[in-house]
Formats: sequence, structure tokens, C-alpha cells
Amino acid sequence: MSETIAFLKPRADVLARRATIIADLADLLPPEGLVHEPRELVPFETDAFVSYRRLPLAVALPTSTAEVAAVLKYCHRYGIPVVPRGAGTSLCGGAIPQEDAVVIGLSRLSRILEIDTANRTATVQAGVTNLAISDAVSPEGFFYAPDPSSQLACTIGGNIGMNSGGAHCLKYGVTTNNLLGVKLVLVDGTVIALGGKHLDAAGYDLLGLVCGSEGQLGIVTEATVRILAKPEGARPVLFGFDTSEEAGACVADVIGSGIIPVAIEFMDKPAIEICEAFAKAGYPLDVGALLIVEVEGSEAEMDAMLALIVEIARRHGVLTVRECQSATEAALIWKGRKSAFGATGRIADYICMDGTVPLSQLPYVLKRTGEIVAGFGLRVANVFHAGDGNMHPLILFNANDPVEAAKAEAAGNEILKLCVDAGGCLTGEHGVGIEKRDLMRHQYSEADLAQQMAVRAAFDAQWLMNPSKVFPLEGRPAA
Amino acid sequence: MSETIAFLKPRADVLARRATIIADLADLLPPEGLVHEPRELVPFETDAFVSYRRLPLAVALPTSTAEVAAVLKYCHRYGIPVVPRGAGTSLCGGAIPQEDAVVIGLSRLSRILEIDTANRTATVQAGVTNLAISDAVSPEGFFYAPDPSSQLACTIGGNIGMNSGGAHCLKYGVTTNNLLGVKLVLVDGTVIALGGKHLDAAGYDLLGLVCGSEGQLGIVTEATVRILAKPEGARPVLFGFDTSEEAGACVADVIGSGIIPVAIEFMDKPAIEICEAFAKAGYPLDVGALLIVEVEGSEAEMDAMLALIVEIARRHGVLTVRECQSATEAALIWKGRKSAFGATGRIADYICMDGTVPLSQLPYVLKRTGEIVAGFGLRVANVFHAGDGNMHPLILFNANDPVEAAKAEAAGNEILKLCVDAGGCLTGEHGVGIEKRDLMRHQYSEADLAQQMAVRAAFDAQWLMNPSKVFPLEGRPAA
Repeated sequence: MSETIAFLKPRADVLARRATIIADLADLLPPEGLVHEPRELVPFETDAFVSYRRLPLAVALPTSTAEVAAVLKYCHRYGIPVVPRGAGTSLCGGAIPQEDAVVIGLSRLSRILEIDTANRTATVQAGVTNLAISDAVSPEGFFYAPDPSSQLACTIGGNIGMNSGGAHCLKYGVTTNNLLGVKLVLVDGTVIALGGKHLDAAGYDLLGLVCGSEGQLGIVTEATVRILAKPEGARPVLFGFDTSEEAGACVADVIGSGIIPVAIEFMDKPAIEICEAFAKAGYPLDVGALLIVEVEGSEAEMDAMLALIVEIARRHGVLTVRECQSATEAALIWKGRKSAFGATGRIADYICMDGTVPLSQLPYVLKRTGEIVAGFGLRVANVFHAGDGNMHPLILFNANDPVEAAKAEAAGNEILKLCVDAGGCLTGEHGVGIEKRDLMRHQYSEADLAQQMAVRAAFDAQWLMNPSKVFPLEGRPAA
Repeated sequence: MSETIAFLKPRADVLARRATIIADLADLLPPEGLVHEPRELVPFETDAFVSYRRLPLAVALPTSTAEVAAVLKYCHRYGIPVVPRGAGTSLCGGAIPQEDAVVIGLSRLSRILEIDTANRTATVQAGVTNLAISDAVSPEGFFYAPDPSSQLACTIGGNIGMNSGGAHCLKYGVTTNNLLGVKLVLVDGTVIALGGKHLDAAGYDLLGLVCGSEGQLGIVTEATVRILAKPEGARPVLFGFDTSEEAGACVADVIGSGIIPVAIEFMDKPAIEICEAFAKAGYPLDVGALLIVEVEGSEAEMDAMLALIVEIARRHGVLTVRECQSATEAALIWKGRKSAFGATGRIADYICMDGTVPLSQLPYVLKRTGEIVAGFGLRVANVFHAGDGNMHPLILFNANDPVEAAKAEAAGNEILKLCVDAGGCLTGEHGVGIEKRDLMRHQYSEADLAQQMAVRAAFDAQWLMNPSKVFPLEGRPAA
């Protein structure tokens, strides 16, 4: 489907001024902070969505808020589009550049600025990876809760841009629930501070607005996040069911009963087989669907919660309940789950959807997802954050077959529309990016979209920041 | 201080058209939905901040989203200011009207629309009271977590406007953490939907932005909130200390160690005496400061968490640890705390501050607060959500003595500045309203404020919605 994605037409005047722009940027950045040779631009030509490739005009790699501000101020003055980039792990094309854009890569803003256990906060630069935050606070007994599967690579800046989630967000919330403050550079280079170490904010919650705004309202250069004390213990437990519908109904009943484990992850039979072949996690292969339910706390607390969950699972005909016996086994169970996308990529091309649905709709949506994909003659593997209703159907196809690629895209669109029609939403944690841009009309009325775009214009009247993303290209207000 | 508060100059053209406006509104609303006789307008002339009184031009009391939309559309077309109002319990003047404004009172939008335990949500109209939500879902074993002290009276619409908190928000978060969706009427009468029963939202988090926007971005007519399963048990425990500083240091250490009880409420000696005299809650009178720490879960879980807290409290020289022995005793303990403002009002006039500070600053800020108020020759009682760092110094004064009133206001301003300077914020849960409007410059730079006002203008270019609130009157962009 790669070349079917429309971008905004490159601004011819910007392309014509390329040499001048690079010379000007070279005045603002040290030599190692500016990439412009075509060969060196290749690593920035796409992101993990990999369905569109374009070399950007140039890449700025600042090491300070001041450098970010200088580049933005320059681009704003001369009407040059800007695409912010963390680690490029976006699954919706959020960091894909365009030919007339300066990419601002935050990877060199990689310092941990402060760990404040007394206030349970960590303040880090935007290019620090998600896992590095937990690693840094771990010796003090703390961790940072949101845990995207890409947490080894993805940056906190990217997490904020997409309001990223992860398996453990069922209990702890997604990025926006764990973010206390940011330093934000506006499109004209003005630096503002949102939030801090304290609860709440006076005036509007611009922090909440910026979280999940996909790099369109400014560039975050520093973030203060909430850190949490590590639980006394944690235990993932495997629940095997005959069918996906039974597993889905069990999840809905657990959550509907008010129990909130740390995580409830779901894998259907294809996903189990793919992950087990890759990670040797010890998943049962004789079941049709698997839940990984993690409980935490003291031994007594874990036992008590588990007993309630087992009782509900029995009502849904659970076939297997297996508690892991060691930390090694627990780590393997999570390794298997977190490598699901990578393991799938080894056996086929795939696109990963990211719809969310109300929990009670889970069995129905799972069933319809299977029917939709089968209707296109394709296969699907489901592996997702079930407790949050955040589905990730992986539609398998052959990217070298344009017909199959078009079918995969069409199936994906139908699935996302299904999620919306079931009372859900196009995205749980991956963002809209370019992938779901045109589906926004299915989720929102014209009035809804107009209001979102008006807010955007209040930050970036020229639509310079990551301009081809989030909103349908047609029907935008004139910049 | 009542008459020192500046409002925007009433729009003379609006005042001149009063008779026409009332006649026009009478076409849009049934007779019982429109109040315009001066005598009948009196209940709407102020709110719980009570420091300014003006009869509004008229009060609309709609019973449907369509009526709200019709009134807003009309006011927008004719440039008439609008002040939304829930139950009028605002402590910062958020619902205080102005002479040229139509108050839109939401109290008659009081229906509970749906309780969906399978998805753990309740959908209610904006005028439903906070406590009515918990009451409605209680038979199914659920509750709605944010619990402002005014929860018997205050409405969910007002809670959303102010992003209200409460004692139990330490564990469960404030309104924004428990809000899933709203129906919002924009200033021109357009109705948009934000969020729903699902996790996250595609596009920008306008739901998070609207929560806490003090009625300036539109009027919420319906809300879908998260409901939670009632815990197995809950137990408030009283910890008495010799001094406020010791109690504050204990709170900072509990939170800093990563323990998160359901609530940690703080009362200093004056607050203990005032509340005990009123509620006969059984608070110890021989201590200098008291913490009410609530733990919840199974008996074993409560015992385990309590043991950790007691150990920390011992390190801070705790004098008394008293677990309550019955549900009646627990209810009394909370009744005492929640009636603190009312009980204080019986013995003196007071203004209640609402600053938040990073936890580690709590002992210092408590000490300085005492010094500041004493410096003005006044008394202070401190009763607040300590675990959140959300302070509520009640400055006692005689409202009939203009000199004392001015001193109280000056002391309050100094305390709020102290909170900001300690890395905190002007408000935790009460909002900015008119009370803290002019202090916004102490918290924010001109660029910060300009960006907030630009967002506001993206919703309400004419500044018609609750116009005299939140932002300093000087330095606003031309409407």
C-alpha cells in the first residue's frame, strides 16, 4: 500500500531554497547536529510503520532546548515544515518525514536530569528511552509504569506525542496519567513550561492536551514523570481457553466485576504459535486463546485476587491455569508477549491495528474481526491489551503482492470502523499519524474535527508541525 | 474584600437590550426554565466564594442539551456573556455572575442516563450531584471516586469545570482521571462529543482540556464517568503528632517511600478543635496535628499497609495511633473532616486557599504559612489533602472589618505565591475563578498565558463564556 498514501504536496518554494536552508541551519547547530547528505538521511526516511519513504530536506539533532528553539524559530520564520522524531518506532507513521520538512530528531537529548524519590518524580530529556527511566530509578525501588512493547528503543518524547500505553497500563494508566510536566518549545521557538512536580495546574490543562498531540502543538524537550514504588511481588498467570470468544468474555467479566489486575493480555491461537516459536515462553499450544493475567502485591494479595479471577475463568470454561514458578519463567512469559510484533514480522508482513472498544463488546468485535479478515482471504493474529479493550489485530499479508497489500489495508480499515461502531475508538496508544488520518471522519463529525483543528491552529497557524498527520488532508482550514 | 474585585465592565449594549433578550429567551425556554424577576434572581447572585454579588441579566434553567444549545446559540449571535452554573458551590468564584450575563444553570439536567457495570461506566446529565452517582451505582457494588467535601450538593458538571478532587483522590485521581466522555455544547450552540466508554481518543485530548476549563470552552450537558468496585473494606486511622512540621514530614516520607493509601488528610490544632467541636468525631485534642490515613482492601492488606505507615510515623515521633473500631466511628471521622469548612464558618469568616506543593516541601510550606498569617495578626487553620500536597489553609478573619478582610486577602496571596515558589501551583481542585485570576501572572510567563488564551479563543473568539474568570483582566487579546 506504500505509495497510495497521499502527503501534502511539497512546498516548491521550500524545496527550491534547500541549499540556503541547510546553510542557515548549519549556523544554528554544530556539525554533528545537522544531517543533510542524502546517504546520511536514509535512516530518517521512514519509521516503524514503513509504508512510505521520503528523504527529508534535512535532519537536525539538537542537544539542548535552546537548539530546538533556534531551529523551530528559523523554520517558522521561513515557512518550513517540521517533523519531530523520537526513536522512529511509530506504528502509525507519526515520524515519517516529507521532502520539504526538517526532521528534528530528539535522540541526543538523552540525559536524565533529576531523580527525586521524595516527590516520586523523574525529570528527563525527551530523547531518554522509556526503559531507561525505569532502569535509572530501579536502584531506589521505583519504576516508570507505562511500558510499550518497544520500550527498549522508544523515547519518552515519542511516548508523550502518542500518549503511549503498554501491558501494565490497565492498572497504572497510560502516559497522560503518569506525566506531571513538560518543557515545550512552541512552533515560533518560544519555550513554555506546563505542569511540574505538583498536582493539577492553574488555568487550562495544556499538559493533557499536548500529551497525545502527535508533535503538532510543539516539541517537548524535557518531561517530569511520576515514578512508582515497585510492588512487593508480581506474578503473571496463564489462562488457556478453547476459543477467543470465551477468553474475551472472561476478560469482560473480570473487569465488569471491578477487579483490576496489573495486566490482562490476550493472544489468540495464531499469536500463541508465532510468539512461542520465537520466544519459547512456555505458552500452552493446545488452547485456542490465552490470557496473561498479572497480579501483584504480597503473596496473600496475589493469592486473593487470583482466586477471584480463577472463579470467573471457570465460569467461562477455562482449560488451563498456570502460575509461573520463578522470576525467569515470568520474564520469559513477558518476553514472548512483548516480542509479538517482531516475531510476527519474521513470518509475514503485517499491519497492526490499534482500535479500542468498550470491554463488553470484546467477544463480538473479536468474532467480527476474524470474519472480516477471512472475508479478504487473509489471516489475522490477535495479541493485545485486553483489560483496556485495546485491540491489536495483526493482519498478515505479502507486501510484495500489491493486491494482497490493498486487501490488508481494506480489512484494517473495516476493523477500525467496527471498533468505532461498537462504541470504541480508532486508536488506543499508537496514535493516528498518517495511518488513520482519513478514518477520523468515521469517528468524528465535521464539528468535532473543526474544533480540534481550531485548537491546532491556536498553536500552529501555518500548519508547519508534522503537517500531513492526524487530520484528513481535505477539508483543512487554509493555513 | 467584596467590592474590591474588578469585573469586566458590563456591556452597555447588552444591558440596554435586557427586555428584548428576556423576551427572546422566553421563546426558547418554557416558563419554568427562565428566571428574570429581580427577586427570583437573588439565589444566583453569588456562589460559595461569596465575595461579590451581582444580579445576572437572567437565568436559564434548561432541561435538555437542545435547550442549552438554543440559549448559547442565541447569546453567541447577540454577543451576550454567559456564566455556566452547577450547584454554585465554587470556592473561587467560578459561578459568580455578572450584570450583563445570562446564567445557564444546569441543576435541572439531573437524570442518570445509564449505569453500565459491564463497562464500569455511568452516564449522567451535568446537573447530577457527585454523591448521587455513587448512590446510584452502590447497589451494584460500585462507587464514583472523586469526593469533594461538597459532594452532597456539587454537580458533576461543576466538578468537570473545576477538575475537582477530594480526600480519596490520592489513590484514585481527580475528576480528569475518572472522566471518559462528555457531550459539550460549544459557544455557538454546536454540540460535539468528546471521548466515550473506550480508552483514549483519536486526535487531540480535548476531553482532558475541557476538564478544568472553568466553563470557558463550552457547556458540558452529559458526562460518562468511570465507576470502581467498592473495596472489600476500608479503615481510617488517626495519627497524632506534636507539631504540624512532624506530621508534614511523615506524609512526605510515606509518599516518598512509594506507599499510596486511599487518603492522607491533615488537620492542625486549630482545625482539630473546630471540627471536633462541631462533629464530635473523637479526634484527640492533646496533639498538635492529626493525620487521617485511610487504608483499604482485605483485612490482611489493610494490616500490612498500616504496619508500614506506623513504622514511618514512629520515626517522626507519632504520639497517638488510633484505628477506628466500627463503621459508625469511621463515618464520624470522615464527617468531621468533610464538615471542616462549614464548622469553621460557624466560628469565624474565612477564606480557603487551595495551593499544591511537591510533597517534600510540605513541612517548609506549613511553617511559612503559619508565619505569614501570624505576620498579619490573623489566625489560620490547616485542613487538607496532604497526600496530594493539596493545601487548604483557612485564614480566619472578621468580614465586617475591612482592614482585617484586606489583611486576609493579602495573606492568602502571599501563601499562594509561596506555593508557586516552592515548585507548586495556585490551585489543586478549586480552580482559578476570580479569586486567583490576578495571581496567574505569578505562576505563568506571558508566553504561557498567551498560549492558554489562544486556546481559549479557538473555542470562544468573543470571550463570551464566563469571561471575567481565570485570566487577568489586563493583557487579554481583543475579543
